[in-house]
Amino acid sequence: MNEKQLAGEKAVEFVKSGMILGLGTGSTVYFTIVKIGELVKNGLQIKAVSTSAATTHLAESLGIPLVSINEVESIDLTIDGADEVDKQFNAIKGGGGALFFEKVVALASKQVIWVVDSRKRVEQLGQFPLPVEVTKFGHTHVLSRLAALGLNPAVRKVDGQPYLTDSGNYIIDLHIGKIERPSELNDTLNAMTGVVEHGLFLKVAQTVIVGSNGAADVLSC
Amino acid sequence: MNEKQLAGEKAVEFVKSGMILGLGTGSTVYFTIVKIGELVKNGLQIKAVSTSAATTHLAESLGIPLVSINEVESIDLTIDGADEVDKQFNAIKGGGGALFFEKVVALASKQVIWVVDSRKRVEQLGQFPLPVEVTKFGHTHVLSRLAALGLNPAVRKVDGQPYLTDSGNYIIDLHIGKIERPSELNDTLNAMTGVVEHGLFLKVAQTVIVGSNGAADVLSC
Repeated sequence: MNEKQLAGEKAVEFVKSGMILGLGTGSTVYFTIVKIGELVKNGLQIKAVSTSAATTHLAESLGIPLVSINEVESIDLTIDGADEVDKQFNAIKGGGGALFFEKVVALASKQVIWVVDSRKRVEQLGQFPLPVEVTKFGHTHVLSRLAALGLNPAVRKVDGQPYLTDSGNYIIDLHIGKIERPSELNDTLNAMTGVVEHGLFLKVAQTVIVGSNGAADVLSC
Repeated sequence: MNEKQLAGEKAVEFVKSGMILGLGTGSTVYFTIVKIGELVKNGLQIKAVSTSAATTHLAESLGIPLVSINEVESIDLTIDGADEVDKQFNAIKGGGGALFFEKVVALASKQVIWVVDSRKRVEQLGQFPLPVEVTKFGHTHVLSRLAALGLNPAVRKVDGQPYLTDSGNYIIDLHIGKIERPSELNDTLNAMTGVVEHGLFLKVAQTVIVGSNGAADVLSC
């Protein structure tokens, strides 16, 4: 079994009957969702909030009952992937472009678990490009401001066209290399007009499950 | 001539040939735009960036040449209205719902002028409800967080349905009464996931033109 599957399936052990779950997006949490789908077929009673069109599609195909984020008061447990996680459980997310909905769901959750393969664990964040979701209107000005800060921004493109998020926004990827002060960068990006959200997730998850060497390690902070 | 017209038309004196202008939204800057339309018909050479569908419609009907915010490097002068302005030129904007595009345009501008009638000048901001533009996804959670902060939030409605901005988002109006620390509230709202932008405009305008007693006073900070 590969690392992604090991980590993704391990997280399902935290799921209890009656829970409202948040379902993340990506190639690792894919295995979580498939496993939950099996359990639902066998009678597990849960409801789930999706973080993307892709996850909604997958969950529906597996018969997992979905509710809107706006219909629930809180989410009991969210399981999601991450692109990089450091030892303080700070993370970069959004390689798949779903960072905004993922952050909304995570912040509405009582408990958050990230499932990752071993290559995602890093000493320092920043090797993976940090995604920033920006509105189309004025995005060139956000790009200029990010460049002036030395953050090496580039509009994400697919087949030569700007990538569109589920909200119809653009993604600007910041090729930083090493993020020395995540908290400071978090504040800078939050304060920037035109930035809808960004992929720095600080102090969000309580548990990280890492697939490596044929096992899944459960780490708690 | 009413106060709105006095203030709105006075601002046109700051417009020079060759400028790229930012055109705000609302019932006072309406008079600015109509006057600029007359000047354009008489040969004034300018290009303008619009802040809303309503202003785009008005400008086009007057023959004012428009360019996209993303096509210009910067804007020479933006003229816009405001709902409340204090003596430090802090303002609440967004009663008309265009706050987000208005802020993007203002922050890309070398010079910003606000045109207001005399009732808009206040000692302290907050009597006018502070608009916060939020994404539909998760807006109920933003509402709960704002309520927990004692900010008296209410989703803006039109004919019983949530009002939709030009970006397809909702507006939550904060009925605060008195905003004691605008800068602190600015930071709190900026940091809140699900908030696209808010109507606090701090240190944005250099000039405020106030219509009162049959004249238009030009105030500079």
